[in-house]
Amino acid sequence: MVADEKATDEALRERETGRLEAFSDGVFAIAITLLILQINVPLHSTHLFHDILLSWPSFLAYVLSFSVILIMWVNHHTIFRLITRIDRRFLMINGILLMLITFLNYPTAVLADYLTTSHAGIALRLYDGTFIVISLTFNLLWRYASYDGRLLGPEVEPVTVAAITRAYRLGPLVYTVSFIVAFVSVPLSLAINIGLAIYFAVYGL
Amino acid sequence: MVADEKATDEALRERETGRLEAFSDGVFAIAITLLILQINVPLHSTHLFHDILLSWPSFLAYVLSFSVILIMWVNHHTIFRLITRIDRRFLMINGILLMLITFLNYPTAVLADYLTTSHAGIALRLYDGTFIVISLTFNLLWRYASYDGRLLGPEVEPVTVAAITRAYRLGPLVYTVSFIVAFVSVPLSLAINIGLAIYFAVYGL
Amino acid sequence: MVADEKATDEALRERETGRLEAFSDGVFAIAITLLILQINVPLHSTHLFHDILLSWPSFLAYVLSFSVILIMWVNHHTIFRLITRIDRRFLMINGILLMLITFLNYPTAVLADYLTTSHAGIALRLYDGTFIVISLTFNLLWRYASYDGRLLGPEVEPVTVAAITRAYRLGPLVYTVSFIVAFVSVPLSLAINIGLAIYFAVYGL
Amino acid sequence: MVADEKATDEALRERETGRLEAFSDGVFAIAITLLILQINVPLHSTHLFHDILLSWPSFLAYVLSFSVILIMWVNHHTIFRLITRIDRRFLMINGILLMLITFLNYPTAVLADYLTTSHAGIALRLYDGTFIVISLTFNLLWRYASYDGRLLGPEVEPVTVAAITRAYRLGPLVYTVSFIVAFVSVPLSLAINIGLAIYFAVYGL
Repeated sequence: MVADEKATDEALRERETGRLEAFSDGVFAIAITLLILQINVPLHSTHLFHDILLSWPSFLAYVLSFSVILIMWVNHHTIFRLITRIDRRFLMINGILLMLITFLNYPTAVLADYLTTSHAGIALRLYDGTFIVISLTFNLLWRYASYDGRLLGPEVEPVTVAAITRAYRLGPLVYTVSFIVAFVSVPLSLAINIGLAIYFAVYGL
Repeated sequence: MVADEKATDEALRERETGRLEAFSDGVFAIAITLLILQINVPLHSTHLFHDILLSWPSFLAYVLSFSVILIMWVNHHTIFRLITRIDRRFLMINGILLMLITFLNYPTAVLADYLTTSHAGIALRLYDGTFIVISLTFNLLWRYASYDGRLLGPEVEPVTVAAITRAYRLGPLVYTVSFIVAFVSVPLSLAINIGLAIYFAVYGL
Repeated sequence: MVADEKATDEALRERETGRLEAFSDGVFAIAITLLILQINVPLHSTHLFHDILLSWPSFLAYVLSFSVILIMWVNHHTIFRLITRIDRRFLMINGILLMLITFLNYPTAVLADYLTTSHAGIALRLYDGTFIVISLTFNLLWRYASYDGRLLGPEVEPVTVAAITRAYRLGPLVYTVSFIVAFVSVPLSLAINIGLAIYFAVYGL
Repeated sequence: MVADEKATDEALRERETGRLEAFSDGVFAIAITLLILQINVPLHSTHLFHDILLSWPSFLAYVLSFSVILIMWVNHHTIFRLITRIDRRFLMINGILLMLITFLNYPTAVLADYLTTSHAGIALRLYDGTFIVISLTFNLLWRYASYDGRLLGPEVEPVTVAAITRAYRLGPLVYTVSFIVAFVSVPLSLAINIGLAIYFAVYGL
């Protein structure tokens, strides 16, 4: 199997990154669309308008997660635009990233269901905790690809690499802050999450 | 981060619109297909044929939303056929549009569940209200892209731009009419919705 | 809007069919995959193995619908391989076809839930009725595209067109037979459905 | 229909494998993403953190199935990279493979629900049994494509073919072992499953 392994690895290194990017895009598109299934229609409601308004945590969680996944998709594309080849380790890290982004559906649903209960803090920490792991994985993916120009095209400037590395450092930090704040104040932690989504959407990562 | 921002923006401006269009198409295709999950199978029915017939509001809401999303996909493609580059703001407006189109699953399910109840008016106004916001976002997307030919190819004729601008103006108007009519008569508002879907399908927007 | 209409129609006629085919493929892929959500996991089962075996109608309905959608995808591709342009009417008929194929999830779920009840006949007729409508729509799509070579490439031989037209005629007929048989004998109608799926898979339509 | 059959077969043989690969990728991407829907949010929990921790079998099943489907996607791509044409039989075997990979959602959900019950052994055998059938189908797909170089490009070396054939032989064997071990020890069988996923991810099949 050693020979096979080597042949496969060689081939992987050479093949264009296009198919992996298309597959990743597919997972992003499905994960972002499945978020809508987490908003439950009120059952046998006798005050429909009121009950729809009461679902605001579901709407908020939907808009928040949709926005952040979209931003992450743009960032993911930024990485793929700069790399020109992939290897098995990159494939693995990218796979873990896709797994986590799909997983985001779960903390989103928990947040929607428990935001107005006494368990809001736990729900928010699960949500922010997931983002901490996702942003760390993004850093790993980028650092692995860019270290010593490993998977990058020859035309990529060191200054571009340095700027992206610097920008990506921000994610784990801010979500850790929001995670910690959720122990003290749920509304403040929620506000940080909303603010971050708007900031990233407007200014980019 | 300013340097990074500029580099990223520059790159965004240059890259072809192809990948964004493919991603948007993916979201359209998933959002339109998920609609089927909103039709519930009768549970432990003792009069299956009768109970399936009683599900007609689900079937109607399914056909209606499927048709309108398909029409919006055609319109979305019309815009993308005319533009030759994208920037961050266009990316954001397009993201909001995708979020709203995916969201349409929710008002569709509410409409299906409450069309034959005394809350039909609320369900219809939620449904039409979503369409008002969607058609306004479509207008924003198109106006942002076409203003002063910002993102359009040089070969696009001003007369084409003007015709599309004129046609897009119709959407928010007719859905506002249907929204208001739903306060007075549910069947009439529903009829307007069905008529609009058929009109747009046959004649285009 | 007449000018816009004409410009749009012209453009539609000219643009390659690639994007419509990719979008259709996406809907096919999602509709076929969503079928799995209709198989319910036994809840709090105390005889898990037994309860899984009891789910055989769900497994059968899954395999049957998955097979038929896959066969329809191959047929859909056959049509798209022969056409070189699309127009608005073709777009509409194709949209109705996609709507029906996505809809198939519903009769599949009904069949799974009621196959072992006294309502099996109704479930089967709903299932076969859907196939009758789908195969009629397939015929419409093909006849519209091929009539007088309307949307076909110039290299397509009349003999190929005639052979496909002949083959497509079969679908509505056989599903009507199965539909009628379901009034008399559920097992026989089911056997016809299974036999048809195997026949089409092995020999093609 | 014989003439049609022949024409269709000829055409199938000639058309590039690209569209089938894209369709397969779509099914892979959707099947892998739908896994998240199997993790249920605790309902009206009064000890949310505790209840989330109690969901560990769902998380484990999610990570395990996501990893294995991703590995299978890589393997699927390896096959498609080496073949240059497809025929009807290949299309059928590939269809059965996609059906089984989508089906994996069901045993994953059963495993998640019953891993901590006395029915864990049955759930694990259903899970491993599905993998046995999937890996046998993978072997069939590869052997059919590679036998006498039937569908392979002329540049593919016999040594590469032999290495892949040897590697693919492993799958059915190890999952049969895990299947049998599940009769004796659930934790050991589970450990084998986890170990296999890690091994395949790190070293490739």
